[in-house]
Amino acid sequence: MLTMQGAISALTKYWSDQGCMVVQPFNTEVGAGTLNPATVLRVLGPEPWRTAYVEPSVRPDDSRYGENPNRLQTHTQFQVVLKPDPGNPQELFLGSLEAIGIDVRAHDIRFVEDNWDFPALGAWGLGWEVWLDGLEITQFTYFQQAGGATLDPISVEITYGLERILMALQDVNHFKDIEYAPGISYGEAFGQAEYEMSRYYLDDADVEMNRRLFDEYATEARRLLDARLPMPAHYYVLKCSHTFNVLDARGAVSTTERAKAFGRTRALTRDVVRLWAERREELGHPLGVAEPLPAAPTPAELPSVSEAATLLFEIGTEELPAGEVRRAAEVMRTSLAEKLAATRLGHGEINTYATPRRIVAVVDAVEPVEPDAERTVRGPRVANAFDATGAPTKAVAGFARGQGMDVADLGRAVIDGVEFVVATKTDVGRGAVAVLSELLSSVVTELRADKNMRWNDPALSYSRPVRWLLALLGEVGVPVAASALASGVTTRVHRTAASPTVPVERADGYVDFLAAHGIVVDIDVRRAQIVESAQQLVAEVGGTVDFDGEAVLLEEIVNLVEKPTPILGSFAEHYLELPDEILTTVMRKHQRYLPVRDGSGALMPYFVAVANGECAHDAVRSGNEAVLRARYEDAAFFWRADLEVKPETMQLGLDKLAFEERLGSMSERTARIAAVAREFGDATVESTVAVTGAAEGAASTPLVPLTAEERQTLGRAAQLAKFDLGSQMVVELTNLAGTMAREYAVRSGETPEVAAALFDMEQPRSAGGALPATRVGALLSLADRFDLLVGLFAIGASPTGSSDPFGLRRAALGVISVLRAFPDLHQITVSRALRTAADVLAAQGVEVAHSAVAEAHEFVVRRYEQQLLDAGNDHDLVAAVLPLADAPVTADVTLAEIKKRTGDPTFVELAAALQRVRRIVPDDVVAGYDAAKITEPAEVALRTAWEQVAATLGGTTPDLAGFASAAQPIVAPIGAFFDDVMVMTDDAEVRAARLGLLASIRDAAAPVLDWRALGAALAKD
Amino acid sequence: MLTMQGAISALTKYWSDQGCMVVQPFNTEVGAGTLNPATVLRVLGPEPWRTAYVEPSVRPDDSRYGENPNRLQTHTQFQVVLKPDPGNPQELFLGSLEAIGIDVRAHDIRFVEDNWDFPALGAWGLGWEVWLDGLEITQFTYFQQAGGATLDPISVEITYGLERILMALQDVNHFKDIEYAPGISYGEAFGQAEYEMSRYYLDDADVEMNRRLFDEYATEARRLLDARLPMPAHYYVLKCSHTFNVLDARGAVSTTERAKAFGRTRALTRDVVRLWAERREELGHPLGVAEPLPAAPTPAELPSVSEAATLLFEIGTEELPAGEVRRAAEVMRTSLAEKLAATRLGHGEINTYATPRRIVAVVDAVEPVEPDAERTVRGPRVANAFDATGAPTKAVAGFARGQGMDVADLGRAVIDGVEFVVATKTDVGRGAVAVLSELLSSVVTELRADKNMRWNDPALSYSRPVRWLLALLGEVGVPVAASALASGVTTRVHRTAASPTVPVERADGYVDFLAAHGIVVDIDVRRAQIVESAQQLVAEVGGTVDFDGEAVLLEEIVNLVEKPTPILGSFAEHYLELPDEILTTVMRKHQRYLPVRDGSGALMPYFVAVANGECAHDAVRSGNEAVLRARYEDAAFFWRADLEVKPETMQLGLDKLAFEERLGSMSERTARIAAVAREFGDATVESTVAVTGAAEGAASTPLVPLTAEERQTLGRAAQLAKFDLGSQMVVELTNLAGTMAREYAVRSGETPEVAAALFDMEQPRSAGGALPATRVGALLSLADRFDLLVGLFAIGASPTGSSDPFGLRRAALGVISVLRAFPDLHQITVSRALRTAADVLAAQGVEVAHSAVAEAHEFVVRRYEQQLLDAGNDHDLVAAVLPLADAPVTADVTLAEIKKRTGDPTFVELAAALQRVRRIVPDDVVAGYDAAKITEPAEVALRTAWEQVAATLGGTTPDLAGFASAAQPIVAPIGAFFDDVMVMTDDAEVRAARLGLLASIRDAAAPVLDWRALGAALAKD
Repeated sequence: MLTMQGAISALTKYWSDQGCMVVQPFNTEVGAGTLNPATVLRVLGPEPWRTAYVEPSVRPDDSRYGENPNRLQTHTQFQVVLKPDPGNPQELFLGSLEAIGIDVRAHDIRFVEDNWDFPALGAWGLGWEVWLDGLEITQFTYFQQAGGATLDPISVEITYGLERILMALQDVNHFKDIEYAPGISYGEAFGQAEYEMSRYYLDDADVEMNRRLFDEYATEARRLLDARLPMPAHYYVLKCSHTFNVLDARGAVSTTERAKAFGRTRALTRDVVRLWAERREELGHPLGVAEPLPAAPTPAELPSVSEAATLLFEIGTEELPAGEVRRAAEVMRTSLAEKLAATRLGHGEINTYATPRRIVAVVDAVEPVEPDAERTVRGPRVANAFDATGAPTKAVAGFARGQGMDVADLGRAVIDGVEFVVATKTDVGRGAVAVLSELLSSVVTELRADKNMRWNDPALSYSRPVRWLLALLGEVGVPVAASALASGVTTRVHRTAASPTVPVERADGYVDFLAAHGIVVDIDVRRAQIVESAQQLVAEVGGTVDFDGEAVLLEEIVNLVEKPTPILGSFAEHYLELPDEILTTVMRKHQRYLPVRDGSGALMPYFVAVANGECAHDAVRSGNEAVLRARYEDAAFFWRADLEVKPETMQLGLDKLAFEERLGSMSERTARIAAVAREFGDATVESTVAVTGAAEGAASTPLVPLTAEERQTLGRAAQLAKFDLGSQMVVELTNLAGTMAREYAVRSGETPEVAAALFDMEQPRSAGGALPATRVGALLSLADRFDLLVGLFAIGASPTGSSDPFGLRRAALGVISVLRAFPDLHQITVSRALRTAADVLAAQGVEVAHSAVAEAHEFVVRRYEQQLLDAGNDHDLVAAVLPLADAPVTADVTLAEIKKRTGDPTFVELAAALQRVRRIVPDDVVAGYDAAKITEPAEVALRTAWEQVAATLGGTTPDLAGFASAAQPIVAPIGAFFDDVMVMTDDAEVRAARLGLLASIRDAAAPVLDWRALGAALAKD
Repeated sequence: MLTMQGAISALTKYWSDQGCMVVQPFNTEVGAGTLNPATVLRVLGPEPWRTAYVEPSVRPDDSRYGENPNRLQTHTQFQVVLKPDPGNPQELFLGSLEAIGIDVRAHDIRFVEDNWDFPALGAWGLGWEVWLDGLEITQFTYFQQAGGATLDPISVEITYGLERILMALQDVNHFKDIEYAPGISYGEAFGQAEYEMSRYYLDDADVEMNRRLFDEYATEARRLLDARLPMPAHYYVLKCSHTFNVLDARGAVSTTERAKAFGRTRALTRDVVRLWAERREELGHPLGVAEPLPAAPTPAELPSVSEAATLLFEIGTEELPAGEVRRAAEVMRTSLAEKLAATRLGHGEINTYATPRRIVAVVDAVEPVEPDAERTVRGPRVANAFDATGAPTKAVAGFARGQGMDVADLGRAVIDGVEFVVATKTDVGRGAVAVLSELLSSVVTELRADKNMRWNDPALSYSRPVRWLLALLGEVGVPVAASALASGVTTRVHRTAASPTVPVERADGYVDFLAAHGIVVDIDVRRAQIVESAQQLVAEVGGTVDFDGEAVLLEEIVNLVEKPTPILGSFAEHYLELPDEILTTVMRKHQRYLPVRDGSGALMPYFVAVANGECAHDAVRSGNEAVLRARYEDAAFFWRADLEVKPETMQLGLDKLAFEERLGSMSERTARIAAVAREFGDATVESTVAVTGAAEGAASTPLVPLTAEERQTLGRAAQLAKFDLGSQMVVELTNLAGTMAREYAVRSGETPEVAAALFDMEQPRSAGGALPATRVGALLSLADRFDLLVGLFAIGASPTGSSDPFGLRRAALGVISVLRAFPDLHQITVSRALRTAADVLAAQGVEVAHSAVAEAHEFVVRRYEQQLLDAGNDHDLVAAVLPLADAPVTADVTLAEIKKRTGDPTFVELAAALQRVRRIVPDDVVAGYDAAKITEPAEVALRTAWEQVAATLGGTTPDLAGFASAAQPIVAPIGAFFDDVMVMTDDAEVRAARLGLLASIRDAAAPVLDWRALGAALAKD
């Protein structure tokens, strides 16, 4: 059996034979092999570099006392860097798998999109996680940036997770059971270290000391940068980083601290990287300078064709992200269509296809040549072309010479009323091959995806490397040169095929040709095959797959393979004890398996994995089953452990979870949430609801107080708020927060309502995500988010630019969405809610300035405005109702009302009348008038009408509908008033009375909406 | 060509094939592979363990900016641990050399004693440095203790220095030129890191921060020990240790800090180790428990021999330290002689021999059996043996039964006048083989050396492992069992022989037998061979070797080989520019080469290396030459660099050299030394020399003031004191301090006298070492040492127990030796010198308590006392002169005088008389008397005699000779006085007068010596 050290030795030998320099693990703690200078620094600059090494990678956060079968505080990476990209790194990688005894033909080995982004390092890359029968065994990345610097040449970084690979190869279920060396298990050798280092990282590390160390290290790193010593500076940056990880594992890092520490580390790394690159340049690049690939020669002799033929163009890539495959086919179609349209080349239908490894276009009936075309070139005016004798002037002679024609052959044409001498020229149509050669080249060079990367090509950029081009017109090869790539007349089929590269003789029938090589190039055909085949498989066990429900997953699966090979796998029935969400989350998100359900919709202990191409089904099935088992075992482990703990006890753990330095622990935060939620609950039943501001009385939906049962539910749920953050499951799978609260709550004897409320309080999880389903849940959700907003604004941690570490934007969008979705709770206005949250916070001793509440209010209102604009509303209409945003429901209702009435002339007149009033009255005029001074008939009429309207309104602010109907009687009097009365008379007292009357009208209308903005909106129609 | 990574790979494979688990370098900075837990922790406890790994070892102190060809701040160790000792680790090791392509037959590979002691780790072991043609390539150690704990089983630790090995294998002269990987040199890959990390360690590390880190780490380690987590504690101990090394490389560690830091680290390590061992036990020893070797069975059937024969006994060992070889032969002879004497076995001459690998005894004419012997056993008294009838009593019957005899066969014997019944028994002589089997076994088990170790044997202990026993009596094998070893009839010859193990058929002619196998077992024959052969070799180049001068070295060389093979090597002539001391120090101390000189005694560019056994002379010569070249190149590099710097400039560097926190930098110390030395110089010429105490006027050697020239020399030398501590050469080779000062001083234009004084001031370097040759040098030497003594006592850092980090004992012995050697400088008394040093120190602001000076004085006097006792003087005689120790010269003279006079009855009488006086006068009686009260004739006579003597003495204290002669006239009157006068009369006034007279005599005699002690001494004769 291959031992772990045997595998290391085999990989070392393999990569050393590939020209890699073997270096040693780094001698200070690193979180990943990437941080070893042999990667993070060597990928910089122009020097070529190939290396391979082992890196024990320390992840304090993964400490599990050695108990978890798959998690270790120190796991072993095998790291390979190939710089520049050798052009065939995937093939080299597959060779390395064979070197450790993996039969790449029998197994399902796949490259599944996984982009790598390491903000603390200012680094990112695109690539894949490599799957062995569903097990992630390797990270494969084209390193694009490091320390904020763009890399050139690009390095390929391959990181093997040795423990996982060895567990699979040795078929053991716990890392401790790996045979490390002959006769010595991993556990025997390193079990004690796992336990003790876990103890250190999770329980025993001195937090204050580690904080001090972080500071010391960061300061020293900065000093060393100033001294222009990147290497020792890098040591200290790594020490910073490790210390941070220790603090994090101890639960001692609040979100602000995290952001600050990241910022500091990132800045240091950026400078280390910059300085290292400079120093290498100063040293004259001791390892030399990598030569870029030469550009492919421009095709010289282009064959001609004599009759219409099918064009086949294939762009061969490394595995595209599943989400990019369909788009790639579409981009290819659009691009070809546009570019062909810009030529005179006749052609028939364009069909495009795509798989992860190829984008194929088939264009029917491409004409052999472009037709000729005539073109007119304008010369001098006729008036200047010939002298009095009719002899050509110098001007026209020069023009003729310039066109290579005789003056006699020139013609005349009138352009814009002036007669010019013109030369008429014929553009001879080019041959199809010439046209296509140029055109297809530009298709390749202009290819772009959502996220693009670079590889060994000096000029191309795309989602993943383009490795070959195939272009055939009928049976004739079309030479295409795109940067360093030159097209050929071969394609590449499965890498594990006997001949991975096969010649293609003709364009016609290429889809079938590929099918014969086991490649299904049509996306929809692949989908159909999966559906059909999966249905057959699950039918055997009496199950079904909800293909409609799994449409997103299915689309992804379809585009993860070139030839779908559905395989039915099973898992132990006892895992069904776990909640659905857990089981399906793992299947979908981590493994891309289709869940199988019985007739009643209940999960069955089966799944459908879709492998790529031919493989040994049993091996692949058993591999996938092992992966799922490991993941479920993990989950079951947490599940069982969590069920041992009462929610109240679990919640005690939140004490140790830092939230924000100044805002205390997560436990203090949940106490605040509970208090705020209870206040909200009380608010719904208070007899005199203290609703203020624009929302006052504007409700169109009746307020419905919480029932006694709801209040009870709220009280209990508030008490347990977020308790599941203390569960092992949520620590592992953060996105199950709320879900686990519901599950654990029910199982510990809470009412279903309390459980539902705890689930609801985490909703919505994202902009546009599902909202709370219950009123109690809604109030909790609001309390959670308002506490967050007030707290962070209170300490001045409002989001800036792109930085929003606490997700305040999401929180603000959340409160808006919840408030809008629960109109019967609209007494919870934004300002009231913020005040409540501020009061609770103040009770915990945190000062909240008025300005902070005001800023938070403004921040929330801006999100509401954005929601309205995003929904396509006119910005003036939005502005018209924005003063009502404190109660978004009211604003919503008003907006709807406006829209309903914009075609109503009466309303338009009312709006116009109020506009006139608004416009003439200076802002500082106070409402009220001396009736005695109102004497002119028109003004008396207006006064009379207004006093009646005011009586109708009765001192309240009705909603728009109410106001519009009540105010109708003053529209005509306003018109008459402005026609007959000069407001700005010289008699000051009279003028004051007139303005005061108008101001009364203005003030009564103002709270209804912003009439000025409404005016602007109506003016557009 | 084998690259560095190729070598690592080959070694990894080789040792992994030997069952070693391959682990990774440790992920925090370590100074040596030993510190990786895979060694330092795994060697503990009973679990078996075999491991091999690479360890980049960080030695901040070795930082050289990548400029020195042989020194790196991080060098690469390849570490192997075999636990338990497999019994043949040397053979396995030689196999590993073959695995990296070293032809062990062609090269001279040797195991040269090198014991390993790592106080900070509480660890030590015995073993060797392994030489490849004179190049140290590996440390080979039998690990005996770690963290203060004795190890069982013993581990073998093999540490390869890869850079050195690769430089030799690739024949390059700079580590940067090593081909690390194909096409990549070491320098290209790691040159920048070498430079930058050197910068950090030597120039840029923040000293205060590193101090804080040290504290933080140590505190955290302690906390983790309290939490019973040895693994994370070990991390922090390593971090401590590295931080300390950084501080040290920055020159920021004073001697007290060093001692404190070491103490702290050692205590932590000790606890880590103890705790780790406990934890492994708690875990039930996951890797199992190593079984000790079984004891060899006790020989059952012992052959008998019929005639006298030669006994051959060989104890086969691994390479003994050279210093142990001759002793081993002697111990064998003594042991055999004693043990044989305790038997009745007749034998002839005993001859013993030894080489590093064997101790051989040849005993002539061993008789085949012991003769029988008679023995008498005492029974009951005859009186009790027979009843009245003469019949035997029960008592005698029982006795006879007990002796297996009839009563009738018992005899009678008179013992101490009583007649007893006795049984006369015959002890039948045992066969020679039986006697020898037991006897030789005890020779082996009782074998002990100066320093002993353990290996895989459960019970043996010796200088190095005993691996085989050969015992033959004539042609008969003598079975010997000693612990796990059983003797055989084979021996082992050179490891590289075609058959390393050969049968031995007979004892006779064994010396020749070995010679035939290339082993010269007689030490003196080896010596003669070396001398003869070396003489021939050097004669070829017209040179000579000073074998007498090199006697110590020669004895070592003789015992480093089993068959000496002298090889003449040469070095480039230009190295002769370097001072002799450097060249010969390197040759002797590091390489054990014999220097070659021409007729005038000048060094020639040659050396004689003595290889072991057959080898390829050219390869071995060129290897040795390369080693010497590298060492000389190093020295020449420093030499040239130092010559660029003026002594004054060099001295500026002492500012950066910490001496002791409270006593300032080395530069402050040299300023003090200069001041003290100048005071001493002045003292020699002061007209009124303030000589006080017991030394006053006691000089027998006239004081000779410094001449004007001497004073000038002293002034200049004092100014430059210790400037060479700032030279690169002395930083590298500390034992050249003083030597380099002399060389550099002369070359920078100082006078030869100044240069000599600078050299002299460092003398004596050890107890019994050479003393200063000049008076100026002596004064500097004294100033240096007195400053050290006063300074350290002033801050309370006096030596305790075994801890004497500043070498105060050596310093005190030094001042005593110098003072005794320069009698014409005896005005420099200990107390005066200490006061001078104290005043100078006080001028630098350091308070010196009177008690500190007193303690220092006492400390110095005790060393003098010790010197006298060590020289074999009677302790009472020593006590007699000790009051004079403030001026040791005076004490010396007095002691000599006493010895001269002990046979002189006059002197003895004087002493006795003074004793009587001393005894009768109470201590509190003051000298002086009322002459009027002295009336009795005897007392008048005494008074008269005394007053004459006092007049002769004239108020001074002469030396003993002077006093003895002057005081002679009072001897008789004292006797008469005591005979005739009762001192203790009732008349108080008379009594007072009598006592006062005697007290006057007492006081005049007291400063001469301690008469009480002298009395005790004389009483013994």
